[in-house]
Amino acid sequence: MTQNSEPNLRIPGPVPLPEEVLQISAKQMINHRGPEYADMLERMSANLRTVLMTKNDVYFITSSGTGAMETAVFNTVSPGDKVLAIIIGFFGIRFAEIAEAVGADVTKLEFPLGQAADIDVLRDALRSEPDYKAVILTHNESSSAVSNPLEEICKTVHDESDALILVDAVSSAGGMPIAVDAWGIDALATASQKSWVAPPGIAMISFSQKAWQAYETCTTPRYYYDIQQYEDFLQLGQPPFTPCESAMFALEVGLQSMVDEGIENVFSRHHEIAEHTRNGAEKLGLEILPERRYASDTLTAIRLPEGLDGKAFVSKVTNDHNVVLGGGQGELTGKIFRIGHMGWVEKDHIDEALAAAEATIKEMTA
Amino acid sequence: MTQNSEPNLRIPGPVPLPEEVLQISAKQMINHRGPEYADMLERMSANLRTVLMTKNDVYFITSSGTGAMETAVFNTVSPGDKVLAIIIGFFGIRFAEIAEAVGADVTKLEFPLGQAADIDVLRDALRSEPDYKAVILTHNESSSAVSNPLEEICKTVHDESDALILVDAVSSAGGMPIAVDAWGIDALATASQKSWVAPPGIAMISFSQKAWQAYETCTTPRYYYDIQQYEDFLQLGQPPFTPCESAMFALEVGLQSMVDEGIENVFSRHHEIAEHTRNGAEKLGLEILPERRYASDTLTAIRLPEGLDGKAFVSKVTNDHNVVLGGGQGELTGKIFRIGHMGWVEKDHIDEALAAAEATIKEMTA
Repeated sequence: MTQNSEPNLRIPGPVPLPEEVLQISAKQMINHRGPEYADMLERMSANLRTVLMTKNDVYFITSSGTGAMETAVFNTVSPGDKVLAIIIGFFGIRFAEIAEAVGADVTKLEFPLGQAADIDVLRDALRSEPDYKAVILTHNESSSAVSNPLEEICKTVHDESDALILVDAVSSAGGMPIAVDAWGIDALATASQKSWVAPPGIAMISFSQKAWQAYETCTTPRYYYDIQQYEDFLQLGQPPFTPCESAMFALEVGLQSMVDEGIENVFSRHHEIAEHTRNGAEKLGLEILPERRYASDTLTAIRLPEGLDGKAFVSKVTNDHNVVLGGGQGELTGKIFRIGHMGWVEKDHIDEALAAAEATIKEMTA
Repeated sequence: MTQNSEPNLRIPGPVPLPEEVLQISAKQMINHRGPEYADMLERMSANLRTVLMTKNDVYFITSSGTGAMETAVFNTVSPGDKVLAIIIGFFGIRFAEIAEAVGADVTKLEFPLGQAADIDVLRDALRSEPDYKAVILTHNESSSAVSNPLEEICKTVHDESDALILVDAVSSAGGMPIAVDAWGIDALATASQKSWVAPPGIAMISFSQKAWQAYETCTTPRYYYDIQQYEDFLQLGQPPFTPCESAMFALEVGLQSMVDEGIENVFSRHHEIAEHTRNGAEKLGLEILPERRYASDTLTAIRLPEGLDGKAFVSKVTNDHNVVLGGGQGELTGKIFRIGHMGWVEKDHIDEALAAAEATIKEMTA
């Protein structure tokens, strides 16, 4: 890859898209209240349910993934409700902020950056407060590339509590297995620009019967994200508001190709490229931020050598090698770099990114 | 145009896009936290200010136009605040619903479908209640193709009240002149899939200093649409949340081409094609729904002959002529059809749509 070609975009979303997908996103606009849209919406809903392993309602919302997180919270949590927020990084803080915006009484269960949630600590927290309306958590924390043990967390919550489970799976769903029904997840939020191989613009959400029960008594002000509107219009084969058709066209193809490939194959492909990335980094003598067992399959966070200016590093890698890495966020700013490997990605993309990182570290520490 | 070609999409948005714009929307994804995005955002903000004739802050939000309407209300109106909602159709009702969702005390000033707001009635309403926090209204009511006399309305509100003026200009801005600063509009909402010749997915909003003052004391729960987040990230040249890049790429070109053409020319082009549509319809013996002086320059609503099934009519026009018309909404369902003429549209598109309508009416009334 040379300076004249497209950059090797290795941030954790928006993911780069194959030319075929870009061309599909360039299809002419259609009537979003006509039969062609209705057919597309029906196929997409069925395929999304397959990938998320759920019979729950699913909806497509024109917004970023944060909009789906807001939809999950604003439709089920009322001012004053007790919420337990499991926080392992930047996006866990965001989810807690959304619950605080509602006026919920939010208890924050924070774990050190680079670590997953501890099940024993969670169990104690649930035992000490029986009245949580909801437990909110990030499945895959993009800021530290840590995946929470979601199945175990869900089991613990169900064992100890009647709380709803609301999951930010923005950067994991579609790339890592999540059994929404088997694990008992009440609302799951994700977004098109991650493992789904589509442009940003469409958030997706699953919503359980228990979540609908909470909806009935929810008093939080909402309009665009009022999930009843999505349900009412779905009955007509329509979105309530004009959708981002370009992203929907691409996402339709992404969803269909995942179902055609077989979701187990999609997930193992993601695991394999993640292992390739982690092994490659370690071969260069670099340290992966999280413990292996909690390392994400959709992106990898790698520690920079002590004292190296991480912001300058990321810029230099882009300028010298045409590879766009993710930097650190929050407390990790300047201390790590991140390589996204979700969606459409080949080993060559990873090898090139690692080689660029290696060469740049050598130059900067020479 | 034959059945094998693309349909002549004449709904009032999403507008059809020229092939060049579609190809631009198919550009490869970029880092939304990198310099390329920052440059684009800066150019787009400057051009949007030019088109809206404002020095106010402007923001781009990934959502439908309704999201920008929610942003206007949820950042300035608190529960219990008195709001005057000027309603001339379906979208006026929606704006009032958004204020009701906040828990505002909403007074509805409703006018008959097909008519614009009456200034004398508005003046009386403002005089009888001095404490309105905001007046909310639709500039261009897509359901009836009526344009409110926005300049006169703003002048009346400013003469009689200290209320904020929040305007839904989703289907007019970019196609009809709106002098945000000269008319004293505090928040104006619009969306990419209308006159801006871009795919749906990006809402736009202008926000005045007076609106920012209201923000300071606003207690309405909000997160994704919290306008402070857009301002904070704009200082970094970034969006707060991952934006729909495909729509942004196209919208950038749309905005630039409007500024290059000269906004007066853009507006007179829209007026001319609107006159062409109205004259053409009347030549066929059809009646335009609104009075000429309030007829919209971005779409036209035409009455169907008494007793003709409007839903069947719209389907038949699509099936027989490959022309997609808008039907009626709300009370007007089945009674009118609508022809969109915003953005990229030529007289041939209109003539073909009118000819298809004429032939179908003849057949259905034969």
